[in-house]
Amino acid sequence: MSDVYAARRDLLRDRCAAAGNAAALISRPANVRYLSGASPLGAVLLVGPAEDVLFCTGAPTGEADEGRLDDGLRISVLPAPGSDPAVAAADMAAAVRADSLAVEEHHLTVGRHRALRSVAPALRLADLGSAVEQQRLVKDEQEIACLRIAAEIADQALGELLESILVGRTERHLALELERRLVDHGADGPAFPTSVGTGPHSGRSRHRPSDRRVEEGDFLTVSLGANYRGYRCEIGRTFVIGTTPADWQIQLYDLVFAAQRAGREALLPGAAYRDVDHAARSVLDSAGHGEALAPSTGHGVGLEIDEDPQLAPTAMGKLDACVPVTVEPGVHLPGRGGVRIDDTLVVRPEADGGPELLTITTKELLAL
Amino acid sequence: MSDVYAARRDLLRDRCAAAGNAAALISRPANVRYLSGASPLGAVLLVGPAEDVLFCTGAPTGEADEGRLDDGLRISVLPAPGSDPAVAAADMAAAVRADSLAVEEHHLTVGRHRALRSVAPALRLADLGSAVEQQRLVKDEQEIACLRIAAEIADQALGELLESILVGRTERHLALELERRLVDHGADGPAFPTSVGTGPHSGRSRHRPSDRRVEEGDFLTVSLGANYRGYRCEIGRTFVIGTTPADWQIQLYDLVFAAQRAGREALLPGAAYRDVDHAARSVLDSAGHGEALAPSTGHGVGLEIDEDPQLAPTAMGKLDACVPVTVEPGVHLPGRGGVRIDDTLVVRPEADGGPELLTITTKELLAL
Repeated sequence: MSDVYAARRDLLRDRCAAAGNAAALISRPANVRYLSGASPLGAVLLVGPAEDVLFCTGAPTGEADEGRLDDGLRISVLPAPGSDPAVAAADMAAAVRADSLAVEEHHLTVGRHRALRSVAPALRLADLGSAVEQQRLVKDEQEIACLRIAAEIADQALGELLESILVGRTERHLALELERRLVDHGADGPAFPTSVGTGPHSGRSRHRPSDRRVEEGDFLTVSLGANYRGYRCEIGRTFVIGTTPADWQIQLYDLVFAAQRAGREALLPGAAYRDVDHAARSVLDSAGHGEALAPSTGHGVGLEIDEDPQLAPTAMGKLDACVPVTVEPGVHLPGRGGVRIDDTLVVRPEADGGPELLTITTKELLAL
Repeated sequence: MSDVYAARRDLLRDRCAAAGNAAALISRPANVRYLSGASPLGAVLLVGPAEDVLFCTGAPTGEADEGRLDDGLRISVLPAPGSDPAVAAADMAAAVRADSLAVEEHHLTVGRHRALRSVAPALRLADLGSAVEQQRLVKDEQEIACLRIAAEIADQALGELLESILVGRTERHLALELERRLVDHGADGPAFPTSVGTGPHSGRSRHRPSDRRVEEGDFLTVSLGANYRGYRCEIGRTFVIGTTPADWQIQLYDLVFAAQRAGREALLPGAAYRDVDHAARSVLDSAGHGEALAPSTGHGVGLEIDEDPQLAPTAMGKLDACVPVTVEPGVHLPGRGGVRIDDTLVVRPEADGGPELLTITTKELLAL
């Protein structure tokens, strides 16, 4: 496993060198974790011309899996409280006579950037851009295995909830119960704050659970995910409470289901991000729901719950195999509620059977 | 309530003007919330020469309390997905012919700063520094009332846990149970990830709960807090599991208790931050535990769980009345465990009875 991190750093080192930069300073936590297997709070990673060093302010316990760090990665624990690991890294880069250091300008603050310049004035600071994020886009099979387990855990937690009594319970308690079940089944934690929306709140994206109680006749939308070894999946389902769904509920459900299926079916290597979005969006659009739709109908997942690619009308780029994404169209009718259906899938070539569905809970409209 | 936010913005506007800046761009979420009562994900606040505008990428529901926004604060919802509210704010500042804009260089990334410069090249970008953080230091009575309720909720959650059977349960489950109870009692959520450490894990600061089960004879350290309307408190206690604590446990507990009491008693308006730290630290230091101590023995709380002031050996500054802080010394003996005792208090003058203790759960060594 430790070779994986060293290989990732070697790839980044080569790309840096090709861009004329002797060293790179990684500060975005998910990027630090991707390249080192560890991300203690506030740690930064110096990928140097020769040696790589993880700078942190405390011993790398907690999030860090210390065993993973013995792949030639040196750990430097700063003794003084309040010292900035990024400054220490720039200091070291200057000391080994690197002439240029690429930093993550989309993560590093102006204040820290200034501090780097002042500690190492001879060092030219360049922009690494999203080089590491691009490296993270296509997942290896070990990463996909983690996502698969994360999805299994989410399916299990959701399945158990469906067997319990729901009427009369609040959104807040259902969300907490789901998060407890995620951990019960082996998650390191929820992948993101669990969302439960009932009645008029159903169908809203990232609705924050309130004290509203589940009532007969409600739509109930649940969105949850597990974090397993840092990898995060997402599943969203909408149910109806009571015996028989109303006609409008069946119609709306069928519509969103059709949109979500169209999105899933568009997931193939080489498909443009915007075309996948269009496949799902156009179904809802032509039924008159275009105005109120979310800006994207899906996104990448991995060490972060919302990473590249974005499946959106203006997104540039094409899907590769082994890219995990969500497909999650939804419609919310103000005052009435709505439907959202969300899966995590991995893009696979048609020869391999097409997209691999990780979240396998049924998408039939269940009346609970 | 809405007047409070307008008054805070007016104060900031005056300070900006005094520093020669026509407008300020606030991007740090806790600062946005402090000045507007709302902080939808990614929102930024422009405090302009005349009008104030909250820029966000979606309707300010969710975290935002929309009712609080009608104090003259205009809300601008950006239509295009992926557009940066900070860029829109700079664009508006340039449009109203502000000549300079103070930004939060300790929060704004280099990449966003560059985008602001390119959208409004005539605008001089200055550094606001931690002006808003300084404004947040001393709390008003409404803020303290929120902290008081947050502390009550944490006390209730902890009190209920103490009445239940603990032996055989994992750290992870105890932590989840506490978080559920916080929400049961009205918290918006935990103020920070609840920490539960048993046996060799006890006494560690911010220990991440593991699958270790509580055993007879263990020290059990619990650290939790409630988030109530955005305000976050903290309480930490250490207990002994079983009938009779061992001699080393009693001695260590008494020592940490003495250190924590010394820290609490030093909390008076005018006391130097470092002197409060010294009061607690020197007790542990003279007992030979100086080396392994955390860099601070307490910190401010409010809209963030860890804000200024820092009670640490090198901290500069003096306490004011109405500043809420934690006092939380602890000792961890590797392989054996340890003790941590943590309260949230509000600094008050001696004439008013001295520091106000918000977290009132007993600090006797309980054998559970």
